[in-house]
Amino acid sequence: MGSTVSSRPAVVLLSGGLDSATVLAMARAQGHDCHCLSVDYGQRHRAELVAAARVAKALGAASHRTLTLDLRAFGGSALTDSAIDVPVDGVAPGIPVTYVPARNTIMLSLALAWAEVLGAQDIHCGVNAVDYSGYPDCRPEYIKAFEAMANLATKAAVEGARLTVHAPLIALTKAGIIRAGADLGVDYGLTVSCYQADDTGRACGVCDSCRLRREGFAAAGIADPTPYR
Amino acid sequence: MGSTVSSRPAVVLLSGGLDSATVLAMARAQGHDCHCLSVDYGQRHRAELVAAARVAKALGAASHRTLTLDLRAFGGSALTDSAIDVPVDGVAPGIPVTYVPARNTIMLSLALAWAEVLGAQDIHCGVNAVDYSGYPDCRPEYIKAFEAMANLATKAAVEGARLTVHAPLIALTKAGIIRAGADLGVDYGLTVSCYQADDTGRACGVCDSCRLRREGFAAAGIADPTPYR
Repeated sequence: MGSTVSSRPAVVLLSGGLDSATVLAMARAQGHDCHCLSVDYGQRHRAELVAAARVAKALGAASHRTLTLDLRAFGGSALTDSAIDVPVDGVAPGIPVTYVPARNTIMLSLALAWAEVLGAQDIHCGVNAVDYSGYPDCRPEYIKAFEAMANLATKAAVEGARLTVHAPLIALTKAGIIRAGADLGVDYGLTVSCYQADDTGRACGVCDSCRLRREGFAAAGIADPTPYR
Repeated sequence: MGSTVSSRPAVVLLSGGLDSATVLAMARAQGHDCHCLSVDYGQRHRAELVAAARVAKALGAASHRTLTLDLRAFGGSALTDSAIDVPVDGVAPGIPVTYVPARNTIMLSLALAWAEVLGAQDIHCGVNAVDYSGYPDCRPEYIKAFEAMANLATKAAVEGARLTVHAPLIALTKAGIIRAGADLGVDYGLTVSCYQADDTGRACGVCDSCRLRREGFAAAGIADPTPYR
Protein backbone atom coordinates (compact mmCIF):
# COMPACT_ATOMS: atom_id res chain seq x y z
CA MET A 1 0.00 0.00 0.00
CA GLY A 2 1.54 3.24 -1.12
CA SER A 3 0.27 6.63 0.01
CA THR A 4 0.57 8.47 -3.26
CA VAL A 5 -2.38 10.51 -4.42
CA SER A 6 -3.79 9.29 -7.69
CA SER A 7 -6.93 9.77 -9.72
CA ARG A 8 -6.51 6.45 -11.44
CA PRO A 9 -9.54 4.19 -11.54
CA ALA A 10 -9.54 1.15 -9.31
CA VAL A 11 -11.92 -1.75 -8.82
CA VAL A 12 -12.85 -2.44 -5.19
CA LEU A 13 -14.51 -5.71 -4.20
CA LEU A 14 -17.20 -4.58 -1.80
CA SER A 15 -19.16 -7.16 0.15
CA GLY A 16 -20.91 -4.73 2.46
CA GLY A 17 -18.99 -6.03 5.46
CA LEU A 18 -16.52 -4.33 7.75
CA ASP A 19 -13.34 -5.36 5.97
CA SER A 20 -14.17 -4.29 2.43
CA ALA A 21 -15.64 -0.99 3.66
CA THR A 22 -12.26 -0.28 5.24
CA VAL A 23 -10.49 -1.16 1.99
CA LEU A 24 -12.73 1.22 0.07
CA ALA A 25 -11.91 4.01 2.52
CA MET A 26 -8.20 3.27 2.11
CA ALA A 27 -8.39 3.28 -1.69
CA ARG A 28 -10.35 6.53 -1.61
CA ALA A 29 -7.73 8.05 0.71
CA GLN A 30 -5.13 7.15 -1.91
CA GLY A 31 -7.12 9.21 -4.38
CA HIS A 32 -8.45 6.40 -6.51
CA ASP A 33 -11.71 6.69 -8.41
CA CYS A 34 -13.29 3.59 -6.90
CA HIS A 35 -15.58 1.36 -8.94
CA CYS A 36 -17.14 -1.04 -6.47
CA LEU A 37 -18.22 -4.55 -7.35
CA SER A 38 -20.56 -6.68 -5.29
CA VAL A 39 -21.74 -10.16 -6.15
CA ASP A 40 -25.17 -11.56 -5.38
CA TYR A 41 -24.09 -15.19 -5.22
CA GLY A 42 -27.09 -16.53 -3.37
CA GLN A 43 -25.55 -15.86 0.04
CA ARG A 44 -27.73 -16.29 3.11
CA HIS A 45 -26.84 -12.82 4.28
CA ARG A 46 -28.25 -10.87 1.40
CA ALA A 47 -28.57 -7.87 3.68
CA GLU A 48 -24.86 -7.34 3.02
CA LEU A 49 -25.71 -6.35 -0.55
CA VAL A 50 -27.95 -3.56 0.68
CA ALA A 51 -25.14 -2.55 3.00
CA ALA A 52 -22.69 -2.52 0.10
CA ALA A 53 -24.80 0.02 -1.76
CA ARG A 54 -24.99 2.39 1.20
CA VAL A 55 -21.28 1.98 1.99
CA ALA A 56 -20.36 2.75 -1.61
CA LYS A 57 -22.45 5.90 -1.48
CA ALA A 58 -21.22 7.02 1.94
CA LEU A 59 -17.56 6.59 0.99
CA GLY A 60 -17.81 8.36 -2.35
CA ALA A 61 -17.46 5.48 -4.78
CA ALA A 62 -17.39 6.51 -8.44
CA SER A 63 -19.77 3.66 -9.24
CA HIS A 64 -21.20 0.49 -7.76
CA ARG A 65 -22.44 -2.61 -9.56
CA THR A 66 -23.91 -5.81 -8.22
CA LEU A 67 -23.51 -8.87 -10.41
CA THR A 68 -25.77 -11.88 -10.00
CA LEU A 69 -24.09 -15.30 -10.06
CA ASP A 70 -25.96 -17.99 -8.20
CA LEU A 71 -23.33 -20.19 -6.56
CA ARG A 72 -26.11 -22.23 -4.97
CA ALA A 73 -25.88 -24.16 -8.23
CA PHE A 74 -22.70 -25.66 -6.77
CA GLY A 75 -23.42 -25.46 -3.02
CA GLY A 76 -20.70 -26.85 -0.77
CA SER A 77 -20.91 -24.08 1.84
CA ALA A 78 -23.12 -23.07 4.73
CA LEU A 79 -23.50 -19.73 2.97
CA THR A 80 -24.84 -21.20 -0.28
CA ASP A 81 -26.59 -24.40 0.84
CA SER A 82 -29.53 -24.03 3.19
CA ALA A 83 -29.04 -27.65 4.31
CA ILE A 84 -25.73 -26.70 6.00
CA ASP A 85 -26.17 -24.71 9.21
CA VAL A 86 -24.05 -21.69 10.08
CA PRO A 87 -21.97 -22.57 13.18
CA VAL A 88 -22.91 -20.50 16.22
CA ASP A 89 -20.92 -22.17 19.01
CA GLY A 90 -17.65 -20.30 18.64
CA VAL A 91 -14.81 -20.06 16.15
CA ALA A 92 -13.30 -23.54 15.72
CA PRO A 93 -9.82 -24.37 14.35
CA GLY A 94 -9.45 -25.14 10.66
CA ILE A 95 -11.42 -24.07 7.59
CA PRO A 96 -15.07 -23.49 8.56
CA VAL A 97 -18.16 -24.72 6.68
CA THR A 98 -18.83 -21.11 5.76
CA TYR A 99 -15.91 -21.39 3.33
CA VAL A 100 -17.33 -20.93 -0.19
CA PRO A 101 -15.37 -22.94 -2.77
CA ALA A 102 -13.22 -20.68 -4.96
CA ARG A 103 -15.19 -17.58 -3.96
CA ASN A 104 -12.26 -15.20 -3.89
CA THR A 105 -10.96 -16.54 -7.19
CA ILE A 106 -14.35 -15.99 -8.81
CA MET A 107 -14.70 -12.49 -7.38
CA LEU A 108 -11.18 -11.45 -8.28
CA SER A 109 -11.78 -12.79 -11.79
CA LEU A 110 -14.88 -10.64 -12.14
CA ALA A 111 -12.94 -7.66 -10.81
CA LEU A 112 -10.24 -8.40 -13.36
CA ALA A 113 -12.78 -8.31 -16.18
CA TRP A 114 -14.19 -5.00 -15.07
CA ALA A 115 -10.73 -3.56 -14.46
CA GLU A 116 -9.78 -4.36 -18.04
CA VAL A 117 -12.88 -2.66 -19.44
CA LEU A 118 -12.33 0.39 -17.21
CA GLY A 119 -8.63 0.59 -17.97
CA ALA A 120 -7.92 0.15 -14.25
CA GLN A 121 -4.63 -1.36 -13.11
CA ASP A 122 -5.55 -1.78 -9.46
CA ILE A 123 -7.92 -4.17 -7.70
CA HIS A 124 -8.48 -3.71 -3.98
CA CYS A 125 -9.92 -6.45 -1.80
CA GLY A 126 -10.44 -7.10 1.89
CA VAL A 127 -8.95 -10.56 2.25
CA ASN A 128 -7.47 -11.20 5.64
CA ALA A 129 -5.31 -14.10 6.76
CA VAL A 130 -5.76 -13.60 10.49
CA ASP A 131 -9.48 -14.27 11.10
CA TYR A 132 -9.51 -17.89 10.02
CA SER A 133 -6.15 -19.59 10.06
CA GLY A 134 -5.72 -21.72 6.98
CA TYR A 135 -8.42 -20.07 4.87
CA PRO A 136 -6.76 -20.90 1.56
CA ASP A 137 -7.71 -17.97 -0.64
CA CYS A 138 -6.79 -15.39 1.98
CA ARG A 139 -3.08 -16.14 2.08
CA PRO A 140 -0.44 -13.78 0.67
CA GLU A 141 0.94 -16.49 -1.61
CA TYR A 142 -2.52 -16.97 -3.10
CA ILE A 143 -2.90 -13.26 -3.83
CA LYS A 144 0.53 -13.20 -5.47
CA ALA A 145 -0.35 -16.22 -7.60
CA PHE A 146 -3.63 -14.62 -8.70
CA GLU A 147 -1.79 -11.45 -9.62
CA ALA A 148 0.78 -13.39 -11.64
CA MET A 149 -2.00 -15.21 -13.49
CA ALA A 150 -3.91 -11.98 -14.08
CA ASN A 151 -0.86 -10.41 -15.64
CA LEU A 152 -0.92 -13.13 -18.30
CA ALA A 153 -4.69 -13.21 -18.73
CA THR A 154 -5.76 -10.02 -20.39
CA LYS A 155 -5.36 -8.00 -23.55
CA ALA A 156 -4.40 -5.10 -21.29
CA ALA A 157 -1.54 -7.15 -19.83
CA VAL A 158 -0.32 -8.14 -23.29
CA GLU A 159 -0.30 -4.45 -24.16
CA GLY A 160 1.91 -3.66 -21.18
CA ALA A 161 -0.47 -2.72 -18.35
CA ARG A 162 0.60 -4.13 -15.00
CA LEU A 163 -2.24 -5.17 -12.70
CA THR A 164 -1.78 -5.05 -8.94
CA VAL A 165 -4.04 -6.79 -6.44
CA HIS A 166 -4.03 -4.83 -3.20
CA ALA A 167 -4.95 -6.70 -0.03
CA PRO A 168 -4.08 -4.10 2.58
CA LEU A 169 -5.80 -5.94 5.44
CA ILE A 170 -4.13 -9.26 4.86
CA ALA A 171 -1.97 -9.20 7.98
CA LEU A 172 -4.09 -6.97 10.21
CA THR A 173 -6.10 -8.08 13.22
CA LYS A 174 -9.80 -7.19 13.29
CA ALA A 175 -9.02 -4.54 15.90
CA GLY A 176 -6.31 -3.12 13.64
CA ILE A 177 -8.71 -3.00 10.71
CA ILE A 178 -11.33 -1.21 12.79
CA ARG A 179 -8.83 1.34 14.07
CA ALA A 180 -7.60 2.02 10.54
CA GLY A 181 -11.13 2.46 9.24
CA ALA A 182 -12.21 4.62 12.16
CA ASP A 183 -9.24 6.91 11.47
CA LEU A 184 -10.57 7.27 7.91
CA GLY A 185 -14.08 8.03 9.10
CA VAL A 186 -15.76 4.75 8.18
CA ASP A 187 -19.20 4.43 9.75
CA TYR A 188 -19.26 0.74 10.62
CA GLY A 189 -22.91 1.03 11.53
CA LEU A 190 -23.56 0.94 7.77
CA THR A 191 -21.84 -2.42 7.34
CA VAL A 192 -23.21 -5.95 7.77
CA SER A 193 -20.90 -8.81 8.71
CA CYS A 194 -23.34 -11.37 10.14
CA TYR A 195 -23.67 -14.62 8.16
CA GLN A 196 -27.34 -14.80 9.00
CA ALA A 197 -28.31 -11.16 9.23
CA ASP A 198 -32.03 -10.56 8.92
CA ASP A 199 -33.52 -8.58 6.07
CA THR A 200 -32.96 -5.28 7.87
CA GLY A 201 -29.30 -6.13 8.51
CA ARG A 202 -29.58 -6.92 12.21
CA ALA A 203 -26.91 -9.35 13.38
CA CYS A 204 -27.23 -12.66 15.25
CA GLY A 205 -24.23 -11.95 17.46
CA VAL A 206 -23.19 -15.62 17.66
CA CYS A 207 -21.91 -16.70 14.23
CA ASP A 208 -18.16 -16.68 13.64
CA SER A 209 -18.32 -13.43 11.72
CA CYS A 210 -20.28 -11.70 14.50
CA ARG A 211 -17.91 -13.01 17.16
CA LEU A 212 -14.79 -11.83 15.34
CA ARG A 213 -16.37 -8.45 14.68
CA ARG A 214 -17.56 -7.95 18.24
CA GLU A 215 -14.18 -8.98 19.66
CA GLY A 216 -12.53 -6.60 17.21
CA PHE A 217 -14.43 -3.59 18.45
CA ALA A 218 -13.72 -4.59 22.06
CA ALA A 219 -10.00 -5.00 21.38
CA ALA A 220 -9.88 -1.71 19.47
CA GLY A 221 -11.57 0.09 22.35
CA ILE A 222 -14.21 1.45 19.97
CA ALA A 223 -17.95 1.30 20.63
CA ASP A 224 -19.61 -1.45 18.56
CA PRO A 225 -22.30 0.19 16.36
CA THR A 226 -23.67 -3.17 15.14
CA PRO A 227 -27.46 -3.51 15.41
CA TYR A 228 -27.99 -6.89 17.11
CA ARG A 229 -31.40 -8.50 17.11
CA MET B 1 -2.88 -35.59 -21.66
CA GLY B 2 -2.45 -39.16 -20.45
CA SER B 3 -4.37 -42.04 -21.92
CA THR B 4 -5.05 -43.93 -18.69
CA VAL B 5 -8.57 -45.08 -18.07
CA SER B 6 -10.11 -43.50 -15.01
CA SER B 7 -13.52 -43.12 -13.47
CA ARG B 8 -12.57 -39.94 -11.65
CA PRO B 9 -14.91 -37.01 -11.98
CA ALA B 10 -13.79 -34.09 -14.12
CA VAL B 11 -15.25 -30.71 -14.92
CA VAL B 12 -15.40 -29.88 -18.63
CA LEU B 13 -16.00 -26.32 -19.80
CA LEU B 14 -18.49 -26.78 -22.62
CA SER B 15 -19.41 -23.81 -24.80
CA GLY B 16 -21.35 -25.74 -27.37
CA GLY B 17 -18.72 -25.06 -30.01
CA LEU B 18 -16.48 -27.37 -31.95
CA ASP B 19 -13.44 -27.16 -29.68
CA SER B 20 -15.04 -27.91 -26.32
CA ALA B 21 -17.10 -30.75 -27.84
CA THR B 22 -13.82 -32.32 -28.90
CA VAL B 23 -12.39 -31.86 -25.41
CA LEU B 24 -15.43 -33.55 -23.88
CA ALA B 25 -14.99 -36.51 -26.23
CA MET B 26 -11.32 -36.73 -25.25
CA ALA B 27 -12.08 -36.63 -21.52
CA ARG B 28 -14.77 -39.28 -21.97
CA ALA B 29 -12.31 -41.44 -23.90
CA GLN B 30 -9.99 -41.20 -20.90
CA GLY B 31 -12.78 -42.64 -18.77
CA HIS B 32 -13.66 -39.51 -16.83
CA ASP B 33 -17.13 -38.92 -15.47
CA CYS B 34 -17.61 -35.55 -17.12
CA HIS B 35 -19.54 -32.76 -15.43
CA CYS B 36 -20.05 -30.10 -18.06
CA LEU B 37 -20.30 -26.42 -17.29
CA SER B 38 -21.69 -23.80 -19.65
CA VAL B 39 -22.05 -20.12 -18.90
CA ASP B 40 -24.85 -17.91 -20.16
CA TYR B 41 -22.86 -14.68 -20.07
CA GLY B 42 -25.10 -12.67 -22.34
CA GLN B 43 -23.29 -13.77 -25.48
CA ARG B 44 -24.81 -12.89 -28.85
CA HIS B 45 -24.65 -16.47 -29.95
CA ARG B 46 -26.96 -17.93 -27.35
CA ALA B 47 -27.67 -20.79 -29.72
CA GLU B 48 -24.36 -22.24 -28.50
CA LEU B 49 -25.97 -22.90 -25.11
CA VAL B 50 -28.65 -25.06 -26.74
CA ALA B 51 -25.87 -26.80 -28.61
CA ALA B 52 -23.97 -27.40 -25.36
CA ALA B 53 -26.92 -29.29 -23.90
CA ARG B 54 -27.26 -31.57 -26.91
CA VAL B 55 -23.49 -32.14 -27.12
CA ALA B 56 -23.36 -33.06 -23.41
CA LYS B 57 -26.13 -35.59 -23.94
CA ALA B 58 -24.73 -37.03 -27.16
CA LEU B 59 -21.28 -37.54 -25.66
CA GLY B 60 -22.47 -39.12 -22.41
CA ALA B 61 -21.77 -36.38 -19.89
CA ALA B 62 -22.50 -37.30 -16.28
CA SER B 63 -24.18 -33.91 -15.81
CA HIS B 64 -24.51 -30.51 -17.44
CA ARG B 65 -25.16 -27.17 -15.80
CA THR B 66 -25.56 -23.72 -17.27
CA LEU B 67 -24.71 -20.82 -14.99
CA THR B 68 -26.02 -17.34 -15.68
CA LEU B 69 -23.57 -14.47 -15.30
CA ASP B 70 -24.38 -11.43 -17.37
CA LEU B 71 -21.07 -10.01 -18.54
CA ARG B 72 -22.95 -7.36 -20.51
CA ALA B 73 -22.73 -5.48 -17.21
CA PHE B 74 -19.08 -4.87 -18.13
CA GLY B 75 -19.26 -4.97 -21.92
CA GLY B 76 -15.99 -4.37 -23.73
CA SER B 77 -16.50 -7.05 -26.38
CA ALA B 78 -18.43 -7.52 -29.61
CA LEU B 79 -19.91 -10.62 -27.99
CA THR B 80 -21.30 -8.79 -24.95
CA ASP B 81 -21.98 -5.29 -26.27
CA SER B 82 -24.53 -4.94 -29.07
CA ALA B 83 -22.97 -1.59 -30.02
CA ILE B 84 -19.79 -3.38 -31.19
CA ASP B 85 -20.23 -5.26 -34.45
CA VAL B 86 -18.86 -8.74 -35.05
CA PRO B 87 -16.20 -8.48 -37.80
CA VAL B 88 -17.17 -10.30 -40.99
CA ASP B 89 -14.42 -9.24 -43.40
CA GLY B 90 -11.82 -11.87 -42.57
CA VAL B 91 -9.53 -12.78 -39.69
CA ALA B 92 -7.27 -9.81 -38.97
CA PRO B 93 -3.94 -9.87 -37.07
CA GLY B 94 -3.96 -9.13 -33.34
CA ILE B 95 -6.56 -9.60 -30.64
CA PRO B 96 -10.05 -9.25 -32.17
CA VAL B 97 -12.97 -7.23 -30.74
CA THR B 98 -14.67 -10.54 -30.01
CA TYR B 99 -12.18 -10.97 -27.15
CA VAL B 100 -14.20 -10.95 -23.89
CA PRO B 101 -12.20 -9.47 -20.99
CA ALA B 102 -11.06 -12.15 -18.56
CA ARG B 103 -13.58 -14.66 -19.90
CA ASN B 104 -11.38 -17.72 -19.60
CA THR B 105 -10.29 -16.69 -16.09
CA ILE B 106 -13.92 -16.33 -15.03
CA MET B 107 -14.94 -19.64 -16.57
CA LEU B 108 -11.98 -21.53 -15.16
CA SER B 109 -12.73 -20.00 -11.74
CA LEU B 110 -16.30 -21.28 -11.92
CA ALA B 111 -15.00 -24.68 -13.01
CA LEU B 112 -12.62 -24.61 -10.05
CA ALA B 113 -15.49 -24.00 -7.63
CA TRP B 114 -17.53 -26.85 -9.03
CA ALA B 115 -14.49 -29.15 -9.12
CA GLU B 116 -13.91 -28.55 -5.44
CA VAL B 117 -17.53 -29.36 -4.56
CA LEU B 118 -17.45 -32.49 -6.74
CA GLY B 119 -14.07 -33.63 -5.44
CA ALA B 120 -12.73 -33.45 -8.98
CA GLN B 121 -9.03 -32.86 -9.60
CA ASP B 122 -9.25 -32.29 -13.33
CA ILE B 123 -10.62 -29.43 -15.39
CA HIS B 124 -10.72 -29.80 -19.16
CA CYS B 125 -11.07 -26.83 -21.47
CA GLY B 126 -10.86 -26.12 -25.17
CA VAL B 127 -8.49 -23.18 -25.24
CA ASN B 128 -6.40 -23.02 -28.36
CA ALA B 129 -3.41 -20.79 -29.07
CA VAL B 130 -3.40 -21.23 -32.84
CA ASP B 131 -6.67 -19.65 -34.04
CA TYR B 132 -5.94 -16.11 -32.86
CA SER B 133 -2.30 -15.32 -32.37
CA GLY B 134 -1.82 -13.32 -29.21
CA TYR B 135 -5.13 -14.17 -27.56
CA PRO B 136 -3.86 -13.74 -24.00
CA ASP B 137 -5.85 -16.29 -22.04
CA CYS B 138 -5.25 -19.05 -24.54
CA ARG B 139 -1.48 -19.26 -24.06
CA PRO B 140 0.22 -22.21 -22.33
CA GLU B 141 1.89 -19.89 -19.80
CA TYR B 142 -1.50 -18.52 -18.83
CA ILE B 143 -2.94 -22.00 -18.25
CA LYS B 144 0.09 -22.89 -16.12
CA ALA B 145 -0.31 -19.70 -14.07
CA PHE B 146 -4.01 -20.39 -13.53
CA GLU B 147 -3.20 -23.92 -12.40
CA ALA B 148 -0.56 -22.65 -9.97
CA MET B 149 -3.03 -20.14 -8.53
CA ALA B 150 -5.77 -22.76 -8.30
CA ASN B 151 -3.48 -25.03 -6.33
CA LEU B 152 -3.24 -22.34 -3.66
CA ALA B 153 -6.89 -21.28 -3.81
CA THR B 154 -8.99 -24.08 -2.40
CA LYS B 155 -9.58 -26.07 0.74
CA ALA B 156 -9.08 -29.17 -1.39
CA ALA B 157 -5.60 -27.95 -2.35
CA VAL B 158 -4.72 -27.22 1.27
CA GLU B 159 -5.77 -30.77 2.05
CA GLY B 160 -3.42 -32.17 -0.56
CA ALA B 161 -5.49 -32.52 -3.74
CA ARG B 162 -3.63 -31.49 -6.88
CA LEU B 163 -5.71 -29.80 -9.55
CA THR B 164 -4.74 -30.11 -13.20
CA VAL B 165 -6.06 -27.89 -15.99
CA HIS B 166 -6.06 -29.85 -19.22
CA ALA B 167 -5.99 -27.88 -22.45
CA PRO B 168 -5.43 -30.67 -24.96
CA LEU B 169 -6.17 -28.52 -28.01
CA ILE B 170 -3.82 -25.71 -27.12
CA ALA B 171 -1.29 -26.39 -29.87
CA LEU B 172 -3.55 -28.05 -32.46
CA THR B 173 -4.73 -26.53 -35.71
CA LYS B 174 -8.47 -26.46 -36.36
CA ALA B 175 -8.00 -29.27 -38.85
CA GLY B 176 -6.13 -31.29 -36.23
CA ILE B 177 -8.91 -30.73 -33.71
CA ILE B 178 -11.55 -31.83 -36.22
CA ARG B 179 -9.62 -34.94 -37.16
CA ALA B 180 -9.15 -35.86 -33.47
CA GLY B 181 -12.83 -35.36 -32.73
CA ALA B 182 -13.97 -37.22 -35.84
CA ASP B 183 -11.83 -40.18 -34.75
CA LEU B 184 -13.72 -40.12 -31.43
CA GLY B 185 -17.09 -40.00 -33.15
CA VAL B 186 -17.99 -36.36 -32.45
CA ASP B 187 -20.95 -35.21 -34.53
CA TYR B 188 -19.93 -31.63 -35.29
CA GLY B 189 -23.35 -31.00 -36.79
CA LEU B 190 -24.53 -30.68 -33.18
CA THR B 191 -22.10 -27.86 -32.40
CA VAL B 192 -22.43 -24.11 -32.95
CA SER B 193 -19.33 -21.94 -33.47
CA CYS B 194 -20.80 -18.88 -35.21
CA TYR B 195 -20.59 -15.62 -33.23
CA GLN B 196 -23.92 -14.55 -34.65
CA ALA B 197 -25.74 -17.81 -35.07
CA ASP B 198 -29.49 -17.43 -35.37
CA ASP B 199 -31.86 -18.92 -32.81
CA THR B 200 -31.89 -22.26 -34.56
CA GLY B 201 -28.08 -22.39 -34.59
CA ARG B 202 -27.58 -21.63 -38.29
CA ALA B 203 -24.24 -20.00 -39.00
CA CYS B 204 -23.43 -16.76 -40.83
CA GLY B 205 -20.39 -18.23 -42.56
CA VAL B 206 -18.45 -14.96 -42.55
CA CYS B 207 -17.47 -14.18 -38.92
CA ASP B 208 -13.98 -15.15 -37.78
CA SER B 209 -15.25 -18.21 -35.97
CA CYS B 210 -17.14 -19.44 -39.04
CA ARG B 211 -14.13 -18.81 -41.29
CA LEU B 212 -11.75 -20.74 -39.04
CA ARG B 213 -14.21 -23.58 -38.69
CA ARG B 214 -14.94 -23.83 -42.41
CA GLU B 215 -11.24 -23.74 -43.29
CA GLY B 216 -10.62 -26.40 -40.64
CA PHE B 217 -13.03 -28.86 -42.24
CA ALA B 218 -11.56 -28.16 -45.67
CA ALA B 219 -8.00 -28.69 -44.42
CA ALA B 220 -9.02 -31.86 -42.58
CA GLY B 221 -10.65 -33.22 -45.72
CA ILE B 222 -13.88 -33.82 -43.81
CA ALA B 223 -17.31 -32.71 -45.03
CA ASP B 224 -18.51 -29.59 -43.18
CA PRO B 225 -21.82 -30.45 -41.45
CA THR B 226 -22.45 -26.83 -40.38
CA PRO B 227 -25.93 -25.53 -41.22
CA TYR B 228 -25.33 -22.18 -42.90
CA ARG B 229 -28.15 -19.74 -43.40
